[in-house]
Amino acid sequence: MILRYDRWGAELPPPSTPDPTGAAHVQELMGGKFGEMSTLMTYTFQSFNFRNRQGARPFYDLIANIAAEEYGHIELVAAAINTMLTDPSKAADQAPTEIDAAEFANPQHYIGGGRGALPQNSNGIPWTGDYVTATGDLVEDLTHNFFLETGARNNKLKVYESVDHPAARALTGYLLCRGGVHQIAYARALENLTGVDMMKAFPSPRIPTDKIPECQPHIERGEHLKLYRFSLSDYLELAAVFNGPHPETGEELEVVSEAPEGVAPMDLPAQPDVFAPDYAPEEIAEIATRLRKAAGMSDTPSGVIANNGHGEGIVDKVKDAVS
Amino acid sequence: MILRYDRWGAELPPPSTPDPTGAAHVQELMGGKFGEMSTLMTYTFQSFNFRNRQGARPFYDLIANIAAEEYGHIELVAAAINTMLTDPSKAADQAPTEIDAAEFANPQHYIGGGRGALPQNSNGIPWTGDYVTATGDLVEDLTHNFFLETGARNNKLKVYESVDHPAARALTGYLLCRGGVHQIAYARALENLTGVDMMKAFPSPRIPTDKIPECQPHIERGEHLKLYRFSLSDYLELAAVFNGPHPETGEELEVVSEAPEGVAPMDLPAQPDVFAPDYAPEEIAEIATRLRKAAGMSDTPSGVIANNGHGEGIVDKVKDAVS
Amino acid sequence: MILRYDRWGAELPPPSTPDPTGAAHVQELMGGKFGEMSTLMTYTFQSFNFRNRQGARPFYDLIANIAAEEYGHIELVAAAINTMLTDPSKAADQAPTEIDAAEFANPQHYIGGGRGALPQNSNGIPWTGDYVTATGDLVEDLTHNFFLETGARNNKLKVYESVDHPAARALTGYLLCRGGVHQIAYARALENLTGVDMMKAFPSPRIPTDKIPECQPHIERGEHLKLYRFSLSDYLELAAVFNGPHPETGEELEVVSEAPEGVAPMDLPAQPDVFAPDYAPEEIAEIATRLRKAAGMSDTPSGVIANNGHGEGIVDKVKDAVS
Amino acid sequence: MILRYDRWGAELPPPSTPDPTGAAHVQELMGGKFGEMSTLMTYTFQSFNFRNRQGARPFYDLIANIAAEEYGHIELVAAAINTMLTDPSKAADQAPTEIDAAEFANPQHYIGGGRGALPQNSNGIPWTGDYVTATGDLVEDLTHNFFLETGARNNKLKVYESVDHPAARALTGYLLCRGGVHQIAYARALENLTGVDMMKAFPSPRIPTDKIPECQPHIERGEHLKLYRFSLSDYLELAAVFNGPHPETGEELEVVSEAPEGVAPMDLPAQPDVFAPDYAPEEIAEIATRLRKAAGMSDTPSGVIANNGHGEGIVDKVKDAVS
Amino acid sequence: MILRYDRWGAELPPPSTPDPTGAAHVQELMGGKFGEMSTLMTYTFQSFNFRNRQGARPFYDLIANIAAEEYGHIELVAAAINTMLTDPSKAADQAPTEIDAAEFANPQHYIGGGRGALPQNSNGIPWTGDYVTATGDLVEDLTHNFFLETGARNNKLKVYESVDHPAARALTGYLLCRGGVHQIAYARALENLTGVDMMKAFPSPRIPTDKIPECQPHIERGEHLKLYRFSLSDYLELAAVFNGPHPETGEELEVVSEAPEGVAPMDLPAQPDVFAPDYAPEEIAEIATRLRKAAGMSDTPSGVIANNGHGEGIVDKVKDAVS
Amino acid sequence: MILRYDRWGAELPPPSTPDPTGAAHVQELMGGKFGEMSTLMTYTFQSFNFRNRQGARPFYDLIANIAAEEYGHIELVAAAINTMLTDPSKAADQAPTEIDAAEFANPQHYIGGGRGALPQNSNGIPWTGDYVTATGDLVEDLTHNFFLETGARNNKLKVYESVDHPAARALTGYLLCRGGVHQIAYARALENLTGVDMMKAFPSPRIPTDKIPECQPHIERGEHLKLYRFSLSDYLELAAVFNGPHPETGEELEVVSEAPEGVAPMDLPAQPDVFAPDYAPEEIAEIATRLRKAAGMSDTPSGVIANNGHGEGIVDKVKDAVS
Repeated sequence: MILRYDRWGAELPPPSTPDPTGAAHVQELMGGKFGEMSTLMTYTFQSFNFRNRQGARPFYDLIANIAAEEYGHIELVAAAINTMLTDPSKAADQAPTEIDAAEFANPQHYIGGGRGALPQNSNGIPWTGDYVTATGDLVEDLTHNFFLETGARNNKLKVYESVDHPAARALTGYLLCRGGVHQIAYARALENLTGVDMMKAFPSPRIPTDKIPECQPHIERGEHLKLYRFSLSDYLELAAVFNGPHPETGEELEVVSEAPEGVAPMDLPAQPDVFAPDYAPEEIAEIATRLRKAAGMSDTPSGVIANNGHGEGIVDKVKDAVS
Repeated sequence: MILRYDRWGAELPPPSTPDPTGAAHVQELMGGKFGEMSTLMTYTFQSFNFRNRQGARPFYDLIANIAAEEYGHIELVAAAINTMLTDPSKAADQAPTEIDAAEFANPQHYIGGGRGALPQNSNGIPWTGDYVTATGDLVEDLTHNFFLETGARNNKLKVYESVDHPAARALTGYLLCRGGVHQIAYARALENLTGVDMMKAFPSPRIPTDKIPECQPHIERGEHLKLYRFSLSDYLELAAVFNGPHPETGEELEVVSEAPEGVAPMDLPAQPDVFAPDYAPEEIAEIATRLRKAAGMSDTPSGVIANNGHGEGIVDKVKDAVS
Repeated sequence: MILRYDRWGAELPPPSTPDPTGAAHVQELMGGKFGEMSTLMTYTFQSFNFRNRQGARPFYDLIANIAAEEYGHIELVAAAINTMLTDPSKAADQAPTEIDAAEFANPQHYIGGGRGALPQNSNGIPWTGDYVTATGDLVEDLTHNFFLETGARNNKLKVYESVDHPAARALTGYLLCRGGVHQIAYARALENLTGVDMMKAFPSPRIPTDKIPECQPHIERGEHLKLYRFSLSDYLELAAVFNGPHPETGEELEVVSEAPEGVAPMDLPAQPDVFAPDYAPEEIAEIATRLRKAAGMSDTPSGVIANNGHGEGIVDKVKDAVS
Repeated sequence: MILRYDRWGAELPPPSTPDPTGAAHVQELMGGKFGEMSTLMTYTFQSFNFRNRQGARPFYDLIANIAAEEYGHIELVAAAINTMLTDPSKAADQAPTEIDAAEFANPQHYIGGGRGALPQNSNGIPWTGDYVTATGDLVEDLTHNFFLETGARNNKLKVYESVDHPAARALTGYLLCRGGVHQIAYARALENLTGVDMMKAFPSPRIPTDKIPECQPHIERGEHLKLYRFSLSDYLELAAVFNGPHPETGEELEVVSEAPEGVAPMDLPAQPDVFAPDYAPEEIAEIATRLRKAAGMSDTPSGVIANNGHGEGIVDKVKDAVS
Repeated sequence: MILRYDRWGAELPPPSTPDPTGAAHVQELMGGKFGEMSTLMTYTFQSFNFRNRQGARPFYDLIANIAAEEYGHIELVAAAINTMLTDPSKAADQAPTEIDAAEFANPQHYIGGGRGALPQNSNGIPWTGDYVTATGDLVEDLTHNFFLETGARNNKLKVYESVDHPAARALTGYLLCRGGVHQIAYARALENLTGVDMMKAFPSPRIPTDKIPECQPHIERGEHLKLYRFSLSDYLELAAVFNGPHPETGEELEVVSEAPEGVAPMDLPAQPDVFAPDYAPEEIAEIATRLRKAAGMSDTPSGVIANNGHGEGIVDKVKDAVS
Repeated sequence: MILRYDRWGAELPPPSTPDPTGAAHVQELMGGKFGEMSTLMTYTFQSFNFRNRQGARPFYDLIANIAAEEYGHIELVAAAINTMLTDPSKAADQAPTEIDAAEFANPQHYIGGGRGALPQNSNGIPWTGDYVTATGDLVEDLTHNFFLETGARNNKLKVYESVDHPAARALTGYLLCRGGVHQIAYARALENLTGVDMMKAFPSPRIPTDKIPECQPHIERGEHLKLYRFSLSDYLELAAVFNGPHPETGEELEVVSEAPEGVAPMDLPAQPDVFAPDYAPEEIAEIATRLRKAAGMSDTPSGVIANNGHGEGIVDKVKDAVS
């Protein structure tokens, strides 16, 4: 089971000029063969199906725990796509206007969804369970996971290079750093099981993250070295596998026994032109306030967000930025 | 982001006589259109894409929080399928034997997987992102969610009736009870937004859970009334929507501010005939012990499980039961 | 079984400037999850599989009859797409010219098809039988149908807003009006079976059709109130369910015992650049004339169409309009 | 647009011993590449997209009219599958009993559906729009249609040979006869356009229908020679193409200007074990009666069916037959 | 089994201005329903599954041999797509630069692939085994093959007309010529088995290749008349079926007992911006040289290519052409 | 381009008792994610898309050449499936009899196909181009290929253990041996490029082939050590990568400069019950003989096969064996 906490793994910039074409490409990192849904679901099923996990505990802990972090990755990919699809000029306090079909590389971003992320790849094809590999054979699964992280890293680099929207860059800078940790973790596990010196395979693709500006803030905080434990009570044996020097920098790998604190998420503004969350979002807000009162709660919403609610702050900032 | 804790939402019986045909049918509850992957991913994407969540907070909290519980549901469906596919006579301390292809209604249960659950439906077709509906329009999404839970309940009842393996029965008894809570939650949300008196729609399908023996232990503990908060810090406004009398029993609905404690998971035995986790699982166990020691950890594995590790306990119990 | 009559449910404007990008978006209304193929096939299969239909006759009649109207809807969506893909400058009496690949958002509109509609969604993904929900459980099926019409209405609104080609606007104006009737019909059926006051849910999405100019001609003729009986002999019990006041206007709902007369379809001009119906369509016309004669039929074709055959009229009109 | 009439193209036997395995195979005739959904939708889209139809009228009429007949074919395939899935021992007046998962070759026949036909093939894979070929090029489309009918005939023969349930045999006997007419019709159209003497290609596969007992009643009524006009007002030029001698028997082909009368459909009994149409179908019947009265209609249902409603007749017959 | 030889069936121009939109359209000829993967795999499976091939030898030889040629066709389609995706300005001796996401109609051309061809259609949907038709019935299979080649020819013509990149034109000019030979071959086989005079069906679509400039070099060499035997030892009976006059020109059809010599392939330059074959391809070249030496091979690579290795020649040529 | 030669890579036993359930499982080795179509098409596309192949020649040669061998593997998988589906009692010289639907785990084995292999996996789902990974990045592609061969080996072992039909055992014995060579080849390539000592990873899964009886004949001939060059003229640099000691046995790896001779294929008997190649195959044989004569060829067919044509030999052998 899981406990959810409403924070993002990394900060993203607020919505600015929408970039639906870029958003369509970022979808590959969500629902592509090497996207975050594939890493999330592959490791999740591997952990569900893990047999004799007590006997092979450190490996079970490693896979189950990385699966937990991947949930935060699909969340951040979605947040980046949502940011890129947000049109501040169409936010809540504006009269709805027409949409231009020609702008959308993936029409379902607005027809089926409310300028929202989809479980699809960059060609608009839905993610499929076929992308999950969970064979039950530990060495094979770890071999696969190392390969999967390699492919994921390749895709992140490509999207980094091709999409220059600040949200896409912030996203890929972060994912490259964290994905690198997972790539190392699975390689270390393979080393321990087979004796193969996988550390020589790094970096793959052969671009070290220190060449990528958007990775630097994360590297400076040591995020390329740390494997967080995403549990209060379990997965205690991570350090039995994740240890030794970082294959590129030589710094010592580190298990952090708490999950990262994260940052407050951006509350993206309503987009009435796509009925998200409604054609007239203020009516829903009124109902919400009334219900909160009836339940004896505070007049103001309880959530922790990075901006001043209702998205108006975003709109103002953007207006300033544009002018 | 999430924290994972290694507990099951409900207890399942240990493996006994394998039932691969039943397991193939239970897959519908995993990867079918109305399966738990659909509820998990639909609510997850709805929460990711929720705009102006601060303004509509109680509704956002409701969807985001139910999404969290659904993670535990795919976990339990996987556990039931794994249990049904486990052949105690082929467990770790036995010489590997042949497999009988004809026994497997879904051949990939053993060819691609190690007698393990798959992200597929009962026809062996992979789950697809197409099953996610996240339109951004709050009323439409809630209408969908109410319908989705209705369909899911129908499917659970059908599997309950058709598969008599004890793991399938324990699973569906639990899911019917918890799915009923979600169905009510979405109906209450719709009532609050539209004024439609959705409570009259219950039960749908028209079989109340009190007619189903395997639901009774859960009903006795009030599980049909409680919406747990699966977060330490967030989703504080659930009670603004989830309140009032239960539509079938008239008892008061209740928000519980902590997640359920859960039960220790069963550590299913190795199945060397399908190389899960290996052809010779004891070698992996030796490596694990060595790594644990090298990392300064205890000699014995740290995990909390319901049985005595390595699956032998299971095998013994089953041997007793069979003889 | 069915009888087909060669009329359209509503008038569409003749082809003018082609809009292949808009046509790609309109495809969502054909082959998307909430498109007309989904409504057609869902209600069709529900009617085929309806058990004890005599005992539940008015409900059977309702679903079976709405299924019949949906056939006309896929026909009109196809007609709109075909109109938008027609390039009058490439019509029959012109020398074929090159095609510009870059113009086509969905390349199969011309490679596989002859500037023709496809059973696909807006991402070019084929419609699938997976979109059909026919559970056999009447209340569940009706709940689904109400939801499906809600989603379909959302999609129609989005396409209305985003595609400004006159054929797309005429199409969506009509479909919004007729889809609204189906939405009400299923809501009324649910009211009758469960007692839930579904009428309070309207409109959903919350834009009433009276705000949409292209709906007005249909509303003026009362098309938002009428359920036509698409049968000469059967489905006599519609009025047992479809009655009472319209949820938005309060006007009385009405069952019309005949199908609508419809309008003569436009005979779209040949497009020799895509070999539709041939590279040299006049040869086919000659053969047709000869066959007609040999069979003792009139020299001129017998069909009823809205324009003067062979598309020349269209070309002339467009030339005038363009110049 | 269409008018629907509630008759079957041919009589089917009442439900007897269920044959879910056979039903799974008959699904190939519904949703397979060469199934009736493929013929229905291919000809439908070809007729929708037909350009310069006035100039090529007899060919347009031919395709559009055969499309109309195919609707009746998917209806009859569904009826046969539903009959084969019906368990008279579980009909309305009985206490619901358990279902045996192992009996169902396609688990979705009961989990997702209420012992009902699905838009899937014999492997449980949904039909897809990819099976539609509508190129706009008349000669190519007709070439395809001739091939499609050849493949369909092959599949019908295979199902005829392999499934001995009386409903499957009655179905395939009828479809072979009618499909043969369509095969000839498209061949004649090709002859007229290209001069190729397609009649020499018959029969293909090389089994004439006169060797198949279940075809004989239809052959005796001349059903192998007649092309019905499924329209009151349109498709008047069929005889310009469909004429001349039958390629196998030499008898004269014939256009019948009215659609066939058909036979009253069987009202299949409720199956409460799968909630079709409900767990307690009599409640729905009561509501139906009340609604009918409130609308000023007769006390008894108005529909024309082949048996005495509610399925009891079927149950009695079957009981007699079984005992 | 096969022997591969590293030659192309026809010459293609070197890379020039990239045309990713055109490349996306050419994908239809690779992975579309009527693409070369469909012809390759259909004939391959028909030959694998051919029963009593000794009894029906000339037909077996025909299908098996054409299957062999189709391998060369997917190769040439890939080569054309790769050429169109190559950006000489980003070749090996240049510093990597950014990619512009907006340029790519199919984002996977660079995200998942290294500016490389994909087994997908023009909408980015993967080719599927469902496109293979291999019924075992010889007449039906041949009927299908004739139709398939007709559809393939239609698609090639459309791509010819719509994509003006020189590689696409050279490709389609060649494929139209060779596909025409296959269309005739299957038609001849059908004539022999059924007596139908299929030659009257040509050309279909009704554009003879002599109207297409890019076909002329191939026609001049008689490529429209020759069926090559792609085997050293087998498929000796081709001439028993492939003989007589060409249906369009009246020239005699001819079986050539050797496979065509082909032309040396272009060695396309590295594209470090997409890590193909690496971010720093010269490192790989160094390793290659070292390995070659260690194995006692020549210092220089052994392969036969059309240009001076490493792609520099291409870059120079393009620089000249551009300036 | 390729030259085909009509030999099998290994001998298979003649058809005996059909095993359609086993055949359905063997399909995983054809069309599964880790099946031979995936290896064939992955390496084929990698070779097509290989950039700067001259600079990286030994690696290009390796991939391109292994691709060629994989063609022979899909051929042999097809042959095994066809053998397992052949019912000698229904062969050419017998009156056709009924088919039993219940026998077929994959109904399309006989409905769509003539007791023939399909491009599908063990659940009857068609192979998809999505299974091809060709990133253009050489290290990533080789990493993938090593993983793919590992997964393929796992699947072959599972099928070996579960299907005891002699054709399945002969097939998997051979494929395990040859797949092992490919696994080593890709590992060696990775070693050369990265310095990782991949040889330590063997065997994976951890069952050496010397424990499998059906591998022994191949091992005795040294087939586990040899990489054949499947070309007359190209791929000359294999030995630069494929060399050194075998990771399990220590014997020296070896490049063989000619392709294996192979064995004559079995000519499987006609199966008139599924119209393969016809309902009356002798008619086709008569036509074949006539055509051969007309072309001035020998009276008897020219092909090399392992049995005495027309399958009678098989039937006789089987009759003997059965009696």
